[in-house]
Amino acid sequence: MSNLIPQHSVVARLISACSSEWRDYTKHRFVTGLGAGTLPEAAFRYYLKQDYLFLIHFARAHALAVYKADTVADMRSAASAVHALIDHEMRMHVEFCAGWGLTEAEMASVPEDPACVGYTRYVLDCGMAGDILDLLVALAPCTIGYGVIGTAFASDPATKRDGNPYEPWISMYSGTEYLDGVREATAQLDRVFEARGGNARITQLTATFREATRLESRFWQMGLDAS
Amino acid sequence: MSNLIPQHSVVARLISACSSEWRDYTKHRFVTGLGAGTLPEAAFRYYLKQDYLFLIHFARAHALAVYKADTVADMRSAASAVHALIDHEMRMHVEFCAGWGLTEAEMASVPEDPACVGYTRYVLDCGMAGDILDLLVALAPCTIGYGVIGTAFASDPATKRDGNPYEPWISMYSGTEYLDGVREATAQLDRVFEARGGNARITQLTATFREATRLESRFWQMGLDAS
Amino acid sequence: MSNLIPQHSVVARLISACSSEWRDYTKHRFVTGLGAGTLPEAAFRYYLKQDYLFLIHFARAHALAVYKADTVADMRSAASAVHALIDHEMRMHVEFCAGWGLTEAEMASVPEDPACVGYTRYVLDCGMAGDILDLLVALAPCTIGYGVIGTAFASDPATKRDGNPYEPWISMYSGTEYLDGVREATAQLDRVFEARGGNARITQLTATFREATRLESRFWQMGLDAS
Amino acid sequence: MSNLIPQHSVVARLISACSSEWRDYTKHRFVTGLGAGTLPEAAFRYYLKQDYLFLIHFARAHALAVYKADTVADMRSAASAVHALIDHEMRMHVEFCAGWGLTEAEMASVPEDPACVGYTRYVLDCGMAGDILDLLVALAPCTIGYGVIGTAFASDPATKRDGNPYEPWISMYSGTEYLDGVREATAQLDRVFEARGGNARITQLTATFREATRLESRFWQMGLDAS
Repeated sequence: MSNLIPQHSVVARLISACSSEWRDYTKHRFVTGLGAGTLPEAAFRYYLKQDYLFLIHFARAHALAVYKADTVADMRSAASAVHALIDHEMRMHVEFCAGWGLTEAEMASVPEDPACVGYTRYVLDCGMAGDILDLLVALAPCTIGYGVIGTAFASDPATKRDGNPYEPWISMYSGTEYLDGVREATAQLDRVFEARGGNARITQLTATFREATRLESRFWQMGLDAS
Repeated sequence: MSNLIPQHSVVARLISACSSEWRDYTKHRFVTGLGAGTLPEAAFRYYLKQDYLFLIHFARAHALAVYKADTVADMRSAASAVHALIDHEMRMHVEFCAGWGLTEAEMASVPEDPACVGYTRYVLDCGMAGDILDLLVALAPCTIGYGVIGTAFASDPATKRDGNPYEPWISMYSGTEYLDGVREATAQLDRVFEARGGNARITQLTATFREATRLESRFWQMGLDAS
Repeated sequence: MSNLIPQHSVVARLISACSSEWRDYTKHRFVTGLGAGTLPEAAFRYYLKQDYLFLIHFARAHALAVYKADTVADMRSAASAVHALIDHEMRMHVEFCAGWGLTEAEMASVPEDPACVGYTRYVLDCGMAGDILDLLVALAPCTIGYGVIGTAFASDPATKRDGNPYEPWISMYSGTEYLDGVREATAQLDRVFEARGGNARITQLTATFREATRLESRFWQMGLDAS
Repeated sequence: MSNLIPQHSVVARLISACSSEWRDYTKHRFVTGLGAGTLPEAAFRYYLKQDYLFLIHFARAHALAVYKADTVADMRSAASAVHALIDHEMRMHVEFCAGWGLTEAEMASVPEDPACVGYTRYVLDCGMAGDILDLLVALAPCTIGYGVIGTAFASDPATKRDGNPYEPWISMYSGTEYLDGVREATAQLDRVFEARGGNARITQLTATFREATRLESRFWQMGLDAS
C-alpha cells in the first residue's frame, strides 16, 4: 500500500483484517494480466461493458451517501463524487470504450452480469439498511482498491508500460487525480468512523468490507470467465 | 419514572439529557387534562382521529426496523411490533373510537394534521437516513413516553379514575401488557446501542431524541388547539 | 399453470412474456431432481442452508412492502407475510432442516452464496428504488414460482412420492395453505398494478420479472454446483 | 401561469386540480408582502434562516431522485440539481444572507422549525415510499411554485421593484436561469409521468401535490408568525 493508505486509518485496519480476500482481489489474475499486458482482449472488453453498468449503480450509491450524510461537508463530498462519476467518469469511460470500438448504446444494452448485480446491489442494500458509515465501508473496496492496484502498478518495475494495451487503464488509476480522490475518501472514512461509533462497530464493518471485497474479486473473475 | 426505566439505560440517559423537553411532553396540559378528566372532549376526539393516522405511519416505521435489523432477534421483535400495531392496536383503536362515536371510515378520511405529518415523517426519515439505532431512538419518545405517562397516572393519588371519561386510555397505558412492551423496547435499545457504537454516538442520538420529543409535544398541542 | 394463475392476471402476462426464462427456472434440473427424488443430497443440503439466509432477506423485502403500501389493506397483507415468514416459515425451515441434521446455528453461520446475495439484494433494490408495484413484481418469481412448481408436481403422475426424500418439500409447496397464499399474492398484484399505472408500466415490469426469474434459476444452479 | 407552464402538462393539470391550495400558496400574504416590499424584515430573516435548512433537505431529496431514476438521462438531470443546490444555491443563499447580516454558522445552528421539518420530511417519505414519479410530484410545488411566483411578479406592473428590499429575491426567481430550470423540471415530469403509468395514477399524485402545496403555504406562514 506504500504511502497511499495511512497506517492507522480505518481502511488500513479493514484491509489488514481481510488480508487474504484483499490479496485475492488486488492480485487477481485479471489484475496481473493488466499489468503484464497479457490479459485476453475479450476479457477486458467484457469487463468494460459491465463496468459501464457498474458505474451507474456506483453513482446511485454515492447519491445515497448524499441523502444519508450527517454534515453538509459530507453531503458536498458525496455530491461531488456523484458529479464526477456521472459527468466525468462515465463520459471518460464512453470515450475510453470508443477506443475499443464499443459504443455507449452497445454498453447500455448489454444484459447485466450476475457478478455486477451481486456487488452493486449488495453495496446499495448495506447503505440503505445501515447508516452512512456502513455505506462508505461497502464502497471502499472499489474506490480504495483501484487506487491500491494503480499505485502498485506504478511502483512495480515489472509492470509493462510500453506497448501494453492496458496502459491507459494503469495511468488512470495511478494518476494524481484518482489518487487524490482515494486519499480524500480514506480521510473521510476516518472522520465518519469516529462520529458514528468507532471501534465498537469494527466487527460488523469488517464483515461488510470482507463481503464487498469478495464480490469485487468476482467482478474480475467474470471478465476472465467471459474470455 | 419509578422503576419502569432502569437508571443506567440509554433511555434514562436520553431523558435526562432532554429533561426540559421531556417534562413539557409528559406533563403537557393535554396529559394533565387526561389525568384530571378535564380535557375538553373535542380535544380528545381530534387527537383520536389523528392518532389513527399516526398508528399507520408508526407501523410503517416498525416495518422499516424489520428491514434494518442486524440480527434475526431484532427482526422478530420489530415484526412483532408491526403485527401488534396493525392487528391489535389499530383494531383496538377502532373499537375504542367506536365508543366515542367515530367510525374507521371517518378516521381514515380525516386530513392529516401538520403535527402528525411532521412527527411521523421525521421519525421515518431519521430511520431511513440512519441505521436501526437512529430509528429506535426516534421512536422511543412515543413508545416509552406513553408508558411513563401511564405509570405516573397509576402511581399518582391525584389521578381521577372514577367517572373519568379518559379512564380507559389511562388503563391501557398503565397496563401490564403495554408496560411489558416498554421494558422490552428499553432493553432492546441498550443492546442495539452497544452493538452500533455506544457512547460515541450519544450527542447525535440526543439531538434526535430531543427533536422527536418536541414533535410529540406538538401532537398533544394539536389536540388542544382543535378544541 | 393449470388453474393456479388466472389467465388474464398480470402474473400470467409476465410469465408469458418471459416464457423461456420461466421454463428454465420452473423446469430447472434441480427441480426435476426434486420431483424424481434423484437430486444429490449434497445439492439439497446446500440449498437448504442458503434458503435460510434467503428467507431472512425475503422477510426484509416484505417488511419493505409494509412500509411502501398505499392502503391499510396492503399493509396488513404484507405484514401478515412478514409474520408468516419470520414466525412460521423460518421456524418450519429450522425444523425441516433438523430432519436433515442441520442446526439453526449452523445455517446462520454459513457464508452467503453469491447467488443468494445477487437475487435477494436485487429484489430489495428494485423495491427501494421503485414503488410497491416494482417490489411485488420482483418478489413474484419466488412466491408464485414455488406454487407453480408445487402444483405441477402434484398433478404430474411421473412425480415420485413414495420413498422420495424430497416429498415433504413437494407437499409443502403443493399444499392448500401455500397455494392460498399464491392466489392472494396474484390477486393483490392485479389490484396494485391497476392502482399504480397498469399497462403503461408493463415493459419495465417485464424486465424486472425476467431478471428476477433468471436470478432464481441461478439459485437452483448454485445447489447443483455445490454437489 | 402565463407561458411558463404548458397548458397540457402534468404540472398544469395538478395545479388546476388543486386550484384553491395553489392560490393560497402562490398568493400567500408573505408573497404579496415580498412584491409590495411591505413584508416585515423579521419575517423575511426568519424565512431565510429556515430556508437554509430547507435547502439541505431539498438537496437530499434530489439525491434520492438520482438513486431512483430509471434512465441515465434522469440521473444526470437529478445529479445536476443536487450539484446546483449544494454548490450554487446554498452558496448563493449564504452570500445573500450575508447581505442581511446572517452568517452561515448562525443559520446552521438555528433549530429547525416544525413547518420546515413537516414539509421536507413529507417530500422525502413520499419519495422513499413511492417511485421517482411520486418524488418529483412532491418536489414540484417548490421548484415550480417559486417560478410561478417569480413570473407573476415580473409581469405584474403593481410589483414594486425600486427600493424594494426583496428585489433581489424577485430577480432571482423571475430570472432566465431559474425559469429554464422550471421548464426543464416541467418537461421531465411529463416524460416520467408517461413512463410510470400516466393517467391511472393522477388521483394519488394529486393528493400528494395538494398536501405538498399546503405544507409550502405553512412555510410562508411560519415566516409571518415569527415576526
